[in-house]
Amino acid sequence: MLKLGGSIITDKSERFRPDEEAIGSLAREIASSGVRELVIVHGGGSFGHPLAADYGLSEGFRGPEQLRGLAETHLAMEELNKLVVSALLAEGLPAIPLPPISCFTTKGKRISRAFLGPLKALLALGAMPVLYGDVVLDEELGFTILSGDQIAAYLALALGAERVVLCLRVPGVFTRNPEEDPSAELIERLRPEDVKHVETGRLRVADVTGGMRKKLEEMAPVAAAGIPVFFTSPRPPGNLARALKGERAVGTLLSR
Amino acid sequence: MLKLGGSIITDKSERFRPDEEAIGSLAREIASSGVRELVIVHGGGSFGHPLAADYGLSEGFRGPEQLRGLAETHLAMEELNKLVVSALLAEGLPAIPLPPISCFTTKGKRISRAFLGPLKALLALGAMPVLYGDVVLDEELGFTILSGDQIAAYLALALGAERVVLCLRVPGVFTRNPEEDPSAELIERLRPEDVKHVETGRLRVADVTGGMRKKLEEMAPVAAAGIPVFFTSPRPPGNLARALKGERAVGTLLSR
Repeated sequence: MLKLGGSIITDKSERFRPDEEAIGSLAREIASSGVRELVIVHGGGSFGHPLAADYGLSEGFRGPEQLRGLAETHLAMEELNKLVVSALLAEGLPAIPLPPISCFTTKGKRISRAFLGPLKALLALGAMPVLYGDVVLDEELGFTILSGDQIAAYLALALGAERVVLCLRVPGVFTRNPEEDPSAELIERLRPEDVKHVETGRLRVADVTGGMRKKLEEMAPVAAAGIPVFFTSPRPPGNLARALKGERAVGTLLSR
Repeated sequence: MLKLGGSIITDKSERFRPDEEAIGSLAREIASSGVRELVIVHGGGSFGHPLAADYGLSEGFRGPEQLRGLAETHLAMEELNKLVVSALLAEGLPAIPLPPISCFTTKGKRISRAFLGPLKALLALGAMPVLYGDVVLDEELGFTILSGDQIAAYLALALGAERVVLCLRVPGVFTRNPEEDPSAELIERLRPEDVKHVETGRLRVADVTGGMRKKLEEMAPVAAAGIPVFFTSPRPPGNLARALKGERAVGTLLSR
């Protein structure tokens, strides 16, 4: 299971600006890893978040004027997904889009039902399903935003993944933001039970692109179930390929 | 339930050429009908069929080189769907894309499982789901092409639709091709039991854009279940709006 952070495939400083060079380079690195039994989930970055915020989608249905936002957010995510899938196809990888809007529903923002038939059938054919953070229908809220992180964690558990690799802008979980603070230290190893100390603030981790705490919370149950979760980044070159193969790479290992 | 034929929203003479004027005019007519509780399914026309034929997708999995065709066909259909949804949004209609690839699976080309939670939730919110003919995973064949007609018939029965309107290039079922033969006559009324005479050739119907026989076969069980099915076209102006409201319009009524 590979999660590609929205912040590494888009330029977050401007709406709907993909980072096509980064997407192409990620596709080459995935291809070079030789790993073929793979589910990819990507985030929204500047394609998903601004629209979702404009229409207040994450907090659910408040009025019919939001429905346009639901459509526009999904269409923007399809656009980004097309770039990711096309880059993977260009590297000869059998990538296939699998839109979450029609196969997941949530209840109170958490996945309540999932239709995994198409996903499992694609894996059986040797294809590489590509999902993404999306708007989905919610049993309590009407609709909500389902993050790529929640999808990756859910599927890792449902499919019994060998490992989960989260590819982010910074190579792992740091004590402070390494892009700003030279005293920042990489936390090389975390155990699922450490995550509650992050929640309470006893363990300090930097929140570089937003949501690191949330990512750790999503991934703690995956690690607790025996599936190692590795937080890493595309740099240095070769790092992601090594992580996908389960080899030593720069990053943070969250595992039992 | 409204099915928009692929031949009226694309130019079938060239690949990936949408008929944006026709799409805009259909969206205006749907808006003007005042009908809001509506599921729309559209065909593929020149976006879906040529790619599907290139890769031999309809007959199922023969080799991994087809997986690229699966991805490309779905992406092309997303592209066409985006044009349809955007035209509906521009008319103030709460259209939302619902990609079939992730919510239907087939067995021997017929729908075997469907995840209708998102569709029902969208209808409950007052949204207008927009589905389309798509590539789907098949329990026997690996994958296949699921036609918009089969989806429309399946959903009409599953949701207990009030009526089904099929909007085609010609306004109804004709004895001969009205675009070529002045002696062509419109068959104004058909009963479900007449459809088997079309199958055996005892009742002659023209096959203008391909698949009229197949459309009748898909829709016969819907009509037999008491849901009237109306075959019509966007012309003359106002015709589709009247058909959607269940008013008298030019076309063929297939009903019990």
